[in-house]
Amino acid sequence: MPTRVSVVEDILSANDRLAVANRDRLDAAGIFAINLMASPGAGKTSLITRTVEALLPEFSMAAVDGDIATTIDADRIAALGVPTVQINTGGACHLDAVMLQEALSRLHLEGLELLIVENVGNLVCPASFDLGVHRNVLIASVPEGDDKPYKYPVMYRGVDVVLLNKIDVLDAFDFDIDYFRRGVEVLNPGLAFLPLSCKTGEGVAEWLAWLRGEIA
Amino acid sequence: MPTRVSVVEDILSANDRLAVANRDRLDAAGIFAINLMASPGAGKTSLITRTVEALLPEFSMAAVDGDIATTIDADRIAALGVPTVQINTGGACHLDAVMLQEALSRLHLEGLELLIVENVGNLVCPASFDLGVHRNVLIASVPEGDDKPYKYPVMYRGVDVVLLNKIDVLDAFDFDIDYFRRGVEVLNPGLAFLPLSCKTGEGVAEWLAWLRGEIA
Repeated sequence: MPTRVSVVEDILSANDRLAVANRDRLDAAGIFAINLMASPGAGKTSLITRTVEALLPEFSMAAVDGDIATTIDADRIAALGVPTVQINTGGACHLDAVMLQEALSRLHLEGLELLIVENVGNLVCPASFDLGVHRNVLIASVPEGDDKPYKYPVMYRGVDVVLLNKIDVLDAFDFDIDYFRRGVEVLNPGLAFLPLSCKTGEGVAEWLAWLRGEIA
Repeated sequence: MPTRVSVVEDILSANDRLAVANRDRLDAAGIFAINLMASPGAGKTSLITRTVEALLPEFSMAAVDGDIATTIDADRIAALGVPTVQINTGGACHLDAVMLQEALSRLHLEGLELLIVENVGNLVCPASFDLGVHRNVLIASVPEGDDKPYKYPVMYRGVDVVLLNKIDVLDAFDFDIDYFRRGVEVLNPGLAFLPLSCKTGEGVAEWLAWLRGEIA
């Protein structure tokens, strides 16, 4: 029934079709991939640094780093000894499946086990573009304020785990964790929630345990 | 020469044409308008609160508040006794000139002197959409990190002043003000730079002085 197949394909956007192809390619290579999303400066690169330092002996890893401009983040990650592909979006406010497809073709996928994708710092646009990874990770941070789930619901709805970074400065900010969590719970019931500090290392072990569990 | 006029008009996008119309409308009413842009949680609403509290006796003011969802910010501003129009973008990552046009038609413009527009929390997309206001204000904040001018150059290039908020927590973060300023200076030479804390009030007087000077 070719007509029916054609209809099914049409309801997927061009981006979603490529995302499926990316996932197939990752699966075929035995690679588990995560997509880190956050506001600018919430701690995406710091989390990658912590993760690579802890898991590099365990897993063969690579990174894909999306930025409007510069290679500041990619340089930090590559310095840890991880193959890193920089995507400069040239102004675009998010990564998409085409960009990840291009990045995958620049990596040696054979033998890789974990791929970490760092999206553009933006709490809005990245949520609308499936990349074809296995888990979407949102990094919130204390200084941003406890009302962000309420104000950026699309992002909070579409992720598989929320990390709350910079808990080392909780005392310096008026941040009500219960209010924050209630907002998350309404949008994404039962979502895994991991408070941590990439600076002090507090809570990082719980994140690594969560990630190991998902990879397994 | 109607053909020539037509060409000149065509190089302006639909948004830019509406922005010009907004500016004309504001000018005709004798209103000075500013557009506040920032990452999520950098302190846009806190700056509006400080500004309204200080300048309300001096100027007749109104606010337009852009958010993906909720009226949290608009409620905070309206509680100060300022007419406030909430724009819920319904997922859109920035305000545009159409949205401001619509908001203007819901305000009583007669007698207004200062209009403060709060854009969606986003360091990328709002920079590309002229609203037709008189000054574009960027609020950076210490916890975001000192590398933001380098990584989000379009935003830093397009504004008339940069505020660095949350300087009360400078000691808790590795933030190199000189590195930050060098990044700004390369993109936007001579740009006014105002460090402040909306929490403690430090530096707010300098912001108010700058704003008064621009209105005059």
